[in-house]
Amino acid sequence: MTKLSSKDYVKVYGEVQKLADYRIKPIARVIHSDTFEMLIALVIVVNAVCLAILTFPNIDPETRQLVLTLDYVCLGIFVVELIVRMISYGKKPWMFFRSGWNIFDFLIIAATPIFAGQTTILRLLRIFRLIRIFRFLPEVRILSASIVKSMRPLLSMFALICLLLFLYGMVGTYLFGAELPVAWGTIGASVMSLVILLTLENFPIYLEEAIAVNGLAIPFLLSYVFIIVFTVLNLLIGIVLNAMDEAREEAKAKEKAPEGLDLVSQNVDEISADGVVTLEEIKALQQEISRLKKLLEQK
Amino acid sequence: MTKLSSKDYVKVYGEVQKLADYRIKPIARVIHSDTFEMLIALVIVVNAVCLAILTFPNIDPETRQLVLTLDYVCLGIFVVELIVRMISYGKKPWMFFRSGWNIFDFLIIAATPIFAGQTTILRLLRIFRLIRIFRFLPEVRILSASIVKSMRPLLSMFALICLLLFLYGMVGTYLFGAELPVAWGTIGASVMSLVILLTLENFPIYLEEAIAVNGLAIPFLLSYVFIIVFTVLNLLIGIVLNAMDEAREEAKAKEKAPEGLDLVSQNVDEISADGVVTLEEIKALQQEISRLKKLLEQK
Amino acid sequence: MTKLSSKDYVKVYGEVQKLADYRIKPIARVIHSDTFEMLIALVIVVNAVCLAILTFPNIDPETRQLVLTLDYVCLGIFVVELIVRMISYGKKPWMFFRSGWNIFDFLIIAATPIFAGQTTILRLLRIFRLIRIFRFLPEVRILSASIVKSMRPLLSMFALICLLLFLYGMVGTYLFGAELPVAWGTIGASVMSLVILLTLENFPIYLEEAIAVNGLAIPFLLSYVFIIVFTVLNLLIGIVLNAMDEAREEAKAKEKAPEGLDLVSQNVDEISADGVVTLEEIKALQQEISRLKKLLEQK
Amino acid sequence: MTKLSSKDYVKVYGEVQKLADYRIKPIARVIHSDTFEMLIALVIVVNAVCLAILTFPNIDPETRQLVLTLDYVCLGIFVVELIVRMISYGKKPWMFFRSGWNIFDFLIIAATPIFAGQTTILRLLRIFRLIRIFRFLPEVRILSASIVKSMRPLLSMFALICLLLFLYGMVGTYLFGAELPVAWGTIGASVMSLVILLTLENFPIYLEEAIAVNGLAIPFLLSYVFIIVFTVLNLLIGIVLNAMDEAREEAKAKEKAPEGLDLVSQNVDEISADGVVTLEEIKALQQEISRLKKLLEQK
Repeated sequence: MTKLSSKDYVKVYGEVQKLADYRIKPIARVIHSDTFEMLIALVIVVNAVCLAILTFPNIDPETRQLVLTLDYVCLGIFVVELIVRMISYGKKPWMFFRSGWNIFDFLIIAATPIFAGQTTILRLLRIFRLIRIFRFLPEVRILSASIVKSMRPLLSMFALICLLLFLYGMVGTYLFGAELPVAWGTIGASVMSLVILLTLENFPIYLEEAIAVNGLAIPFLLSYVFIIVFTVLNLLIGIVLNAMDEAREEAKAKEKAPEGLDLVSQNVDEISADGVVTLEEIKALQQEISRLKKLLEQK
Repeated sequence: MTKLSSKDYVKVYGEVQKLADYRIKPIARVIHSDTFEMLIALVIVVNAVCLAILTFPNIDPETRQLVLTLDYVCLGIFVVELIVRMISYGKKPWMFFRSGWNIFDFLIIAATPIFAGQTTILRLLRIFRLIRIFRFLPEVRILSASIVKSMRPLLSMFALICLLLFLYGMVGTYLFGAELPVAWGTIGASVMSLVILLTLENFPIYLEEAIAVNGLAIPFLLSYVFIIVFTVLNLLIGIVLNAMDEAREEAKAKEKAPEGLDLVSQNVDEISADGVVTLEEIKALQQEISRLKKLLEQK
Repeated sequence: MTKLSSKDYVKVYGEVQKLADYRIKPIARVIHSDTFEMLIALVIVVNAVCLAILTFPNIDPETRQLVLTLDYVCLGIFVVELIVRMISYGKKPWMFFRSGWNIFDFLIIAATPIFAGQTTILRLLRIFRLIRIFRFLPEVRILSASIVKSMRPLLSMFALICLLLFLYGMVGTYLFGAELPVAWGTIGASVMSLVILLTLENFPIYLEEAIAVNGLAIPFLLSYVFIIVFTVLNLLIGIVLNAMDEAREEAKAKEKAPEGLDLVSQNVDEISADGVVTLEEIKALQQEISRLKKLLEQK
Repeated sequence: MTKLSSKDYVKVYGEVQKLADYRIKPIARVIHSDTFEMLIALVIVVNAVCLAILTFPNIDPETRQLVLTLDYVCLGIFVVELIVRMISYGKKPWMFFRSGWNIFDFLIIAATPIFAGQTTILRLLRIFRLIRIFRFLPEVRILSASIVKSMRPLLSMFALICLLLFLYGMVGTYLFGAELPVAWGTIGASVMSLVILLTLENFPIYLEEAIAVNGLAIPFLLSYVFIIVFTVLNLLIGIVLNAMDEAREEAKAKEKAPEGLDLVSQNVDEISADGVVTLEEIKALQQEISRLKKLLEQK
């Protein structure tokens, strides 16, 4: 067994991790160093600026060529970085693919030569490379963690919204489909109209059109707006509040410390300090604990 | 009296219920089984897909015929399911109508032959049959339960909004009715304009039109928007927060039951039960408490 | 001094009040009875329906005449009710004007003959008479009470919003006034544009117009939308949450009862039950109280 | 060392501060007096009214001249006030620039002669002079303090929103840039479109245009609206709730100090101080506790 030293620990995205035995230490230490990560982040930003400049149509050809070259240089740096990172896994390169971010990086780099010639996909791949910058933002980690935690209610709420969209879409098609084929002709058109209504835009237009066709438009559209806005609001506010609650509870848990239990523990220490424990001492402890239980129950 | 066995219990929409004596056990057990309910849910989904396909006008006649047949098959399955469910009530078929869902199912099935020929109603009945899928979603049950619980404040808020709409509608008709008959001509038109303003859509249009007629339009429309948006926001946020509060309190009540401290207390009881307390026993207690502290810190 | 009996108490808008000595009891009891108030509420509703019908232009003259007569009958009933209410104050009729609602009722009734001939004002007075129905809705009382309670932060927030509107209006006039006189020509036009922007309507139109005039439009409009939407949201959510908080705290205060203090009180009862109080008993009490204090502090 | 007297203390924007030794006391006391500050606030308001009047184009030349003169008088008063304030710092005039507000005041006054001739900048300077009124509003201080406190999450959220805008802007340019150059032609145009979509305005227009170009418009725009609305909502609600939480905690900390129980405890101390406890004393204690219970119930 090898001896552990501070050199075996690296900081990976804010958390201190122990380097696995199979990894090539000198390389791993470099790629997990703050300097190296800052450099990569910088390259990502430079790449982003390049892509932004390239969207302007009337730049002179020379600048265009320069920026394009810079874009390729950035891609080259990403390729080299990826290879170095894989090499750092030494004899077990397959462990590299244990991390979701690593797989993501590999795919967007490896996919570039495959789709050579297909401009749209190549362009999207270029943007996906910029997404890697999210790894360096702690706020994104917190936000995505809170979204992942509230995934279940989110998904079932989402299913509920889809169901409501479908049912209202069917009713809308039956009520107004024949007369208003553009907005309500098929289930697809109806659902699209309902999605637009989600933003409350065009509500007066849809209402006016639909009333002319069928008087049921009033209860139909009003009930839809109220139910769907309520459900979406419920969904959004629920997630925001849940995320904030958890953040606050964690902060509290750290601050407010288990003082009560500290006291009990301290008592136990004192009781047993003299090496002899009397029944009286135990009774005092029992009272302490029952007091603590009441406290907890009243919270 | 009959002997009870595990066969007398069925799961009805997530809750375990005892089958009543008068019910025909073998049939009841089948219709309340998970497999049967999954099958019915599947038939509902298939039926939904059929209805969605039928909304597209330019499908070829053969496919149309096939889908229509499938729709009838689904209706047939629903009829058979309903009859079997009623039969399962044995000698007391009227007990079937004790459940709101059962009455709903009966009405939308029984109403189909009655309205034969009236396309619109038949079409709506078809969609109502899809609503039965809601029974299988726990999220809907929670949401509707929370809405039912906050029914009273909701209704009185709703009455308040209607009253405000009427009063503002009357004032709007008197102020702008003569000059702007389309938007404010009658109490009906005025209330419709105010409902559209609820979504804040067309606010600039109404404001411009109304200012040209009467300078009072500014305080009228501004006070309306502020009061009504505030009241509706109050209504929506109130319900959402109430529902979330209850859900959280329930969750807390289950979680936070001071089980940990109960265990410690129980341990202390056991330790002191024999009248003798050894240092070993105290050490075990200390470990128990430190374990508990870690648990609290992790929360 | 007169003897008190249950006949001296009446229910005034949900609260039991003692009738003052100077009031004429038999009349006061009638006008504060539930039956009488229900009748008045009914007359208000009938009056509301009359006014609603009169807004429709193409009703036949006979119906119109009938409804107009009914409107006058309602007014007559209101006049009689007002006089009877004033008579019930006996020798001190000026006490009638101690209540805000009474003054309001008197003014809208007494003003009717004064403004004879001025249709608009008479019409508005008619609607104001309908506002009296609000007295019978408990929800309105709760809502208005919560608004009154949060009046101070509301007013200072409102002052802040007005100040922001003025400052942004001045800047807007200076930046775009010369080129866009309709939307930003004077401080009045600018504030109107900014009020419309409050609803986020027409944002794209204003942005497009303003960018063409001056590049500063982007930071100007974006900062306005963010600051003002944030401030208004702050205002609205603040009031809603405050109102809900108070309602909940009241509910809790009633539910959660001062159990702790009950215990202390009980202890004091027990301690003094035997007629003798020892120093030991007082010490126990002191411990009980200090325990209670800790409990309160930890909350 | 000089002797301290009540004359050495002044109230600066709501907080009592000790005057530094080097300041010229008589002048400092005048400029920090309530009367002086009210006068300055009044001059600011008069100045605001002047500026508002000057925005109307068709006022007669005489009034115009009068208002312009009044504007110059106000500026004169501000200059004099600034000089007096600087003089009050006596031998250490550089200490004047220790306060942010003082620097702000100096710059907007000193900048006026520098930009003579440049109408737009002079006009903006005029408005900036009005901003000084904010110093007199406590609500603004509370609001800005709460914003400053939540600066860090606000900034990182803001960075996240900018990043999302950039990424979505790049994708939008690639997907629709060639066909819809006005809305999605360059990264600038795309980000502008996305900012407009933030207000949910024009959503139907962008959606319709984009769908005609590329089917990916649906997931692109829907995911954007949901993610960005959710993030912005998160940002706004988070700040509002945090600010309210802190305000409430402060209020609670002041109110809920268990003064009542302190009193009871103190009474018990007094009662038992003489070593003898009489029944009378116990009865007094019981009354104290019942009083306390009523207090708690009223909360």
